[in-house]
Amino acid sequence: MEYRNMDQAQLTAEYEAVSRRFEELKGKGLKLDMSRGKPGKEQLDLVSDMLTVLSKPEDCVVDGFDVRNYGELTGLPCAKAYFAEILGCRPEECFIGGNASLTLMYDTIAKAYTHGLLHSEKPWSKLDTVKFLCPSPGYDRHFNVTKSFGMELITIPMTADGPDMDAVEEAVKDPAVKGIWCVPKYSNPEGVIYSAETIRRFAHLKPAAPDFVIMWDNAYCIHEFEGEYVPFPDIISLCREAGNPDMVFEFASTSKVTFPGAGVSVMASSVDNIKYMVSLMTYQSISYDKVNQLRHVRYLKDKDHTLALMKKHAAILGPKFRAVLDALDKEIAPLGIASWKRPTGGYFVSLDTEDGLAKRTLALCKEAGVVMTGAGATFPNSIDPRDRNIRIAPSLPPVAELEAAIDVFCVCLRLAALEKLLGKN
Amino acid sequence: MEYRNMDQAQLTAEYEAVSRRFEELKGKGLKLDMSRGKPGKEQLDLVSDMLTVLSKPEDCVVDGFDVRNYGELTGLPCAKAYFAEILGCRPEECFIGGNASLTLMYDTIAKAYTHGLLHSEKPWSKLDTVKFLCPSPGYDRHFNVTKSFGMELITIPMTADGPDMDAVEEAVKDPAVKGIWCVPKYSNPEGVIYSAETIRRFAHLKPAAPDFVIMWDNAYCIHEFEGEYVPFPDIISLCREAGNPDMVFEFASTSKVTFPGAGVSVMASSVDNIKYMVSLMTYQSISYDKVNQLRHVRYLKDKDHTLALMKKHAAILGPKFRAVLDALDKEIAPLGIASWKRPTGGYFVSLDTEDGLAKRTLALCKEAGVVMTGAGATFPNSIDPRDRNIRIAPSLPPVAELEAAIDVFCVCLRLAALEKLLGKN
Repeated sequence: MEYRNMDQAQLTAEYEAVSRRFEELKGKGLKLDMSRGKPGKEQLDLVSDMLTVLSKPEDCVVDGFDVRNYGELTGLPCAKAYFAEILGCRPEECFIGGNASLTLMYDTIAKAYTHGLLHSEKPWSKLDTVKFLCPSPGYDRHFNVTKSFGMELITIPMTADGPDMDAVEEAVKDPAVKGIWCVPKYSNPEGVIYSAETIRRFAHLKPAAPDFVIMWDNAYCIHEFEGEYVPFPDIISLCREAGNPDMVFEFASTSKVTFPGAGVSVMASSVDNIKYMVSLMTYQSISYDKVNQLRHVRYLKDKDHTLALMKKHAAILGPKFRAVLDALDKEIAPLGIASWKRPTGGYFVSLDTEDGLAKRTLALCKEAGVVMTGAGATFPNSIDPRDRNIRIAPSLPPVAELEAAIDVFCVCLRLAALEKLLGKN
Repeated sequence: MEYRNMDQAQLTAEYEAVSRRFEELKGKGLKLDMSRGKPGKEQLDLVSDMLTVLSKPEDCVVDGFDVRNYGELTGLPCAKAYFAEILGCRPEECFIGGNASLTLMYDTIAKAYTHGLLHSEKPWSKLDTVKFLCPSPGYDRHFNVTKSFGMELITIPMTADGPDMDAVEEAVKDPAVKGIWCVPKYSNPEGVIYSAETIRRFAHLKPAAPDFVIMWDNAYCIHEFEGEYVPFPDIISLCREAGNPDMVFEFASTSKVTFPGAGVSVMASSVDNIKYMVSLMTYQSISYDKVNQLRHVRYLKDKDHTLALMKKHAAILGPKFRAVLDALDKEIAPLGIASWKRPTGGYFVSLDTEDGLAKRTLALCKEAGVVMTGAGATFPNSIDPRDRNIRIAPSLPPVAELEAAIDVFCVCLRLAALEKLLGKN
């Protein structure tokens, strides 16, 4: 029975039962983590052969170039070719970075701030106000990059097709609005795939700011955990065709393909944008780690071979997501206190409680030894106006631990809902 | 005979002979590179075992932590302990970065510009003028980092004991002077080791700017190519003892110990400085490549083991430096047209021609197929006021090629000197 249909006596009985269950769980002294999209050990072990794919000096030479030495700031040509195939863009549009695409994103915003982008009239640091669009729920690390430079974060609602494009088109009429954060495929945290129409409207945006930038973080471009690989359009050519060739920077990495902490990242954009960025990045680095770039190219080979590896990741991740979704279906759905998306790729389940329950639920989880992403994290400035969105990250714990953790979560959510209905909190 | 003592007829005969020799060399179609401090292939091959030092999943766990996954922004504890021993500082003063210490230096200056350093009253971007001291001849990439943020570069003369400290102490009375670039051991390009007195005066500086920063690039801290390892004081504790705990950031890397393009870098400073920098860098990265950090710690082990490896590098580099110095002694010294230092570590030979010969010498080298560091590169804004300093980088070419290259160089220098004496250029 849905909680809203229970009378006071039923609610009180339920509250007492759930409280007892909560105390039991608390007594177990659990220490479980569903806070971050970290791959689990089984996934890391999948790619162990990569450790030794380069094992002799002669393995380190490609196209006549010794990858062990300095040089080639923009990355190895073979790494550009590899990522271009994955993303559907051109090799010359790819800049290969270090182990973190977040760093490339940060550097892009930092350069906009200190020097301006290609079409900036002046560096953003010289402007009174810079506003950045944040489709929400979204990724806290994105929002915080722009926040760290003092930018004003504007919430854009998410829909089942991606960001609310009416709201985006309206917002970009303000010349102080300089960009937007996007995770276009399996959005973080909802797992939404932007629709073709959403993508078309992005490519055709007519922002007032000449240096408006779409930060297109294609973090989960090949990260299906259910079903077949879903092809996805190349935003760079779409922007070019729409007359906006320099409006988008795309990012991706192998962090959730090989080793999360030791992968290779890519920034893709128009040749002019890459050339401009290189003119600034040449002061920052002589070159990124090309030994690791070559290690990846030799190990991952090409898109087909990589997609076959992603199937193996899916075989590990699928059961974890199903464990979470099954528990929610069984424990929460009948109570009418929350709703959630059923993603088929990415790293998260996004759940919306009834308004005003997220913080309390996560506080109870913490009390019972289950760490989750902080409440509000998926909104600008960590303020969820309806205090309802919770991001669940099922990838790290083994299935047995995960089942224990989601059990705790369900109990905490029920308790939070009952407390509210009974006026106890 | 010194050129200055030759009469016109002797000079003309010499000019004709050297010109013929130059044309002969040009005819050979050489393609030789002495432009950058790149280690040669033999040095890269020395450390090949590092490629496979981590080869199984269980190799990737240290102190209970799986280095393949996300996390530990400041670096692995074992990597901090390793670098602390090398530098003589404390592990908690070390921040372990990616493959390039240049990037850590850039990030430090970039953060000063966008957010300010720990003791900044405001970000440097909000100041009308920021001046930075550049001991010269020095390292072009250092100077260019600060130049790329619009800072005014102030030349400080180099002496045999390091930067002219009278000039430094005078300059720092100006509150717009915010820092200084230093390569304290085997300075780039002269190979000068800062004297104990110079270092003491650095630690005791009383700059007007509360956020004055010494950028202490200890790039060649263990890089002797002749003789025994030279112990070197820890600038961080010296600054602390002098009441300037937060005035210095030290940098180093394994770029010239293992793989130039795939090493590990370190930034060392007071615990308070590191804490402050981490509060800003947390937006930029989740963590650097800890697989590569562990690879290095397992392979390099400790300071003693690393110094033994550096002896092997020295066995390769020593003959190259001697080839250059021997040629200069034989071909140039008797002519009185240039002087140079005899370094025992580092990666360069710094040569001063008679005034006004550097650009012409290097143009002739280029014509004859020998690439050198651009004339002026060792001075702020690439302007050598006396057009005389030339940086020779003997590390990359095999000895036979190096002998050919330095032969070309000597001929070009002689030709440039003769042209000038004969009023031909």
